[in-house]
Amino acid sequence: MAKDFSTREENYSKWYNDIVQRADLAENSAVRGCMVIKPYGYAIWERMQSALDKMFKDTGHSNAYFPIFIPKSFFSKEADHVEGFAKECAVVTHYRLKNDPDGKGVVVDDTAKLEEELIIRPTSETIIWDTYRNWVQSYRDLPILVNQWANVVRWEMRTRMFLRTAEFLWQEGHTAHATKEEAIEETHKMLDVYADFAENYMAIPVLKGVKSENERFAGALDTYCIEALMQDGKALQAGTSHFLGQNFARAFDVKFTSKEGKLEYVWATSWGVSTRLVGAVIMAHSDDNGLVLPPKLAPIQVVIVPIYKNEKQYRMVCEKADEIRIAMQNKGLRVKLDDRDTHKPGWKFNEYEFKGVPLRIAIGPRDVENDTVEIARRDTLEKSVYQQQDLPNKVEHLLEAIQDNLFQKALNFRDAKTFYADTWEEFNEILDEKGGFIYAHWDGTAETEQKIKEETKATIRCIPLGNKKQEGKCIYSGKASAQRVIFARAY
Amino acid sequence: MAKDFSTREENYSKWYNDIVQRADLAENSAVRGCMVIKPYGYAIWERMQSALDKMFKDTGHSNAYFPIFIPKSFFSKEADHVEGFAKECAVVTHYRLKNDPDGKGVVVDDTAKLEEELIIRPTSETIIWDTYRNWVQSYRDLPILVNQWANVVRWEMRTRMFLRTAEFLWQEGHTAHATKEEAIEETHKMLDVYADFAENYMAIPVLKGVKSENERFAGALDTYCIEALMQDGKALQAGTSHFLGQNFARAFDVKFTSKEGKLEYVWATSWGVSTRLVGAVIMAHSDDNGLVLPPKLAPIQVVIVPIYKNEKQYRMVCEKADEIRIAMQNKGLRVKLDDRDTHKPGWKFNEYEFKGVPLRIAIGPRDVENDTVEIARRDTLEKSVYQQQDLPNKVEHLLEAIQDNLFQKALNFRDAKTFYADTWEEFNEILDEKGGFIYAHWDGTAETEQKIKEETKATIRCIPLGNKKQEGKCIYSGKASAQRVIFARAY
Repeated sequence: MAKDFSTREENYSKWYNDIVQRADLAENSAVRGCMVIKPYGYAIWERMQSALDKMFKDTGHSNAYFPIFIPKSFFSKEADHVEGFAKECAVVTHYRLKNDPDGKGVVVDDTAKLEEELIIRPTSETIIWDTYRNWVQSYRDLPILVNQWANVVRWEMRTRMFLRTAEFLWQEGHTAHATKEEAIEETHKMLDVYADFAENYMAIPVLKGVKSENERFAGALDTYCIEALMQDGKALQAGTSHFLGQNFARAFDVKFTSKEGKLEYVWATSWGVSTRLVGAVIMAHSDDNGLVLPPKLAPIQVVIVPIYKNEKQYRMVCEKADEIRIAMQNKGLRVKLDDRDTHKPGWKFNEYEFKGVPLRIAIGPRDVENDTVEIARRDTLEKSVYQQQDLPNKVEHLLEAIQDNLFQKALNFRDAKTFYADTWEEFNEILDEKGGFIYAHWDGTAETEQKIKEETKATIRCIPLGNKKQEGKCIYSGKASAQRVIFARAY
Repeated sequence: MAKDFSTREENYSKWYNDIVQRADLAENSAVRGCMVIKPYGYAIWERMQSALDKMFKDTGHSNAYFPIFIPKSFFSKEADHVEGFAKECAVVTHYRLKNDPDGKGVVVDDTAKLEEELIIRPTSETIIWDTYRNWVQSYRDLPILVNQWANVVRWEMRTRMFLRTAEFLWQEGHTAHATKEEAIEETHKMLDVYADFAENYMAIPVLKGVKSENERFAGALDTYCIEALMQDGKALQAGTSHFLGQNFARAFDVKFTSKEGKLEYVWATSWGVSTRLVGAVIMAHSDDNGLVLPPKLAPIQVVIVPIYKNEKQYRMVCEKADEIRIAMQNKGLRVKLDDRDTHKPGWKFNEYEFKGVPLRIAIGPRDVENDTVEIARRDTLEKSVYQQQDLPNKVEHLLEAIQDNLFQKALNFRDAKTFYADTWEEFNEILDEKGGFIYAHWDGTAETEQKIKEETKATIRCIPLGNKKQEGKCIYSGKASAQRVIFARAY
């Protein structure tokens, strides 16, 4: 690629930004912290949405839509919730502009001030539980299994495309249950859906676990998460599923009559993933030649590039190439034939390599004669010649092989970057020299966790589900510990 | 249905609201003018989205996403645009809350005031054309064919669920072209897509036409529209497609080098439909028994209700009903088997009739013996007995017949409600006594149009495409007119 493109070694952060911009995924907008998701980047998000939406529906959920505005007073009803979100929210105070009496342009019309300010949703628990109050009278009205695809706004100070932006797109599931057990089961079920999606679509292995109190969602009793490892050894939280207990039901007075005829508060969960996942896919698989996409999420799975020297060859090759395209499309593959004569094959090879298209098929006059094509794999950069016979099936198998290979590579990488630390020195050494996940003993207090974060920037990513109990001493305080937890520096 | 449900005759407006609420489509939220779209209502919108999205992609468009915030200064760059939208927009002025020092709850943190206020998009031309400036250098970068699915906010004073809400969901296409001709062609193409969708999915006949200057989109050179007729004789604008000329390219300095090497401003279009279409579908087809949905948009196309007297019959009937369900689902139909034993068949009949499910299949013990089922059509309320053999095909044909029948009924209704008026008296008489579309002569001036609106509340819905020229006298001013235009009272 062009020389102004960074490698991971040189500057990981610039490498990431270069890929996002040069692969046409997204760009910064005129509004601080907000990005424009360009068609190619948005197409990846659409693939994610469509797979997740089907998984949500297969597990009994329906979509709905709630207002983007939350009355300020709703926000204060759950004490932890407002603590967690009040510091970073966009506030609507007026509902009209007027011509500037002193000059050009428009100014806010002071006579159009809202009685109560409205907050742009940073998450929708409050407005949704205010609504659920009217939906629930009896146990027969439960469970409510609802999901929403929406935009949310959190006024983050340091932003980065896809990974952390002031506005982002996400889905938020909000469910209501008659019993604690059922709500906890739902929390786990959706965590499993997320892990399944991360591993089988994004080709990223994830650790499932529960957050420590410090890292818990504001208003939750327990936050479950999936944690992925990026190529620079930093962790990335890829999805969360919260058991909210009866906190929001109490705050918004949502009660139901149980089978036994008692009036009880409803149990709640919420769970979400966002456009951050696009950032995770980019970071997990791409290389110094540009973007690498898992076939299941690639907007274009196969690109066909005709090779020719003259007009006659061009027509002959394109005719065959188009046959191949149609055969593969009929098989359900996402194929593009780039038959533009304004760009040379070499330029196209670079372009689609950089954009992470999993397979490239080149076809020239000799291929037409010999009934062959040349296929290049994006993941390994290997090229091989294939007979055209039964090509759609061969291509399908190659795509599956790439999907598997990307997952296996990411898994091997994570295994190689998973460490055990038993002393503070060891812990710091691993953090600074190797990165990755570190299993270490912790005394279980929020204070220790906070101090470790302040001194090393590492946080507890999670306490893995089914973690084995093992006595030891906290790497920081030396106090007794009943289990190792997973530390890492994180996005 | 229950006695508290209005008929169209009694109170058309209440009838509409009753359907929206009692069929579980939507409800008002705690935020003024914003609705909650409930799962059943949202499922109709999802069917619309999926059909339209495919039509947009089949015509070469891609989806993308632009920020919800528009810097205030962008708004003023196109003079007509700001005039049209400044009066009804939500303004973000602050980005943080803090604990109220004088008491409970939170207040806006005055130290977190934005330097420049942000407007919640009422439509995205300005932020998008600010972005396009960097996407376009040469004619080779054109056309840009982009669509966005998003929420927008217009601070309307009088709102009505689906038809006019402060926040609504929509799609907005924004395209950029090298020539005027190409942009105009795109405007027409997307109008045709909308008309196709309205007639073939929503089963609503529409008139295609161009708006008068008064009714034009703020910033457009021409606004094309599709106009539908509701059962109370009022018109409803169901979609618009705007030819924006070079207005936004000039305002945001978007130029390109043409094939001839000249620097020129880019030509623009924009086009959109919204959740208002859900309101149109409800109003166009429903009757005094509740909602009526066209099969192509119905979340549930067929409901199966088992009839039984005892546990043994229940099991026998449900087994057969489930076989039927599976056979129909395998055919791609959207089927629900309601085998709850907590509700009686009569209750279920009412429920699904009210919710507009196109076909209801009842199956009892005698049906199981005789290999029959009873099928009731929601549109005609007719019931017939069918042999179970080949049932999925029969059901598919019935659904097609319902789709066609709803369109034909709506077309007949519109034909019966289309009038010609040659005098002011005639015009007023038709408006007050019959409603519907009125073809009448108009002198072509904005003043006359405005006066007609003030005196009668009727507006020019459109000048039909391919309108035949015909000399006459303006019904209001008596001045010369070259053609009839279409008037109606409208939503």
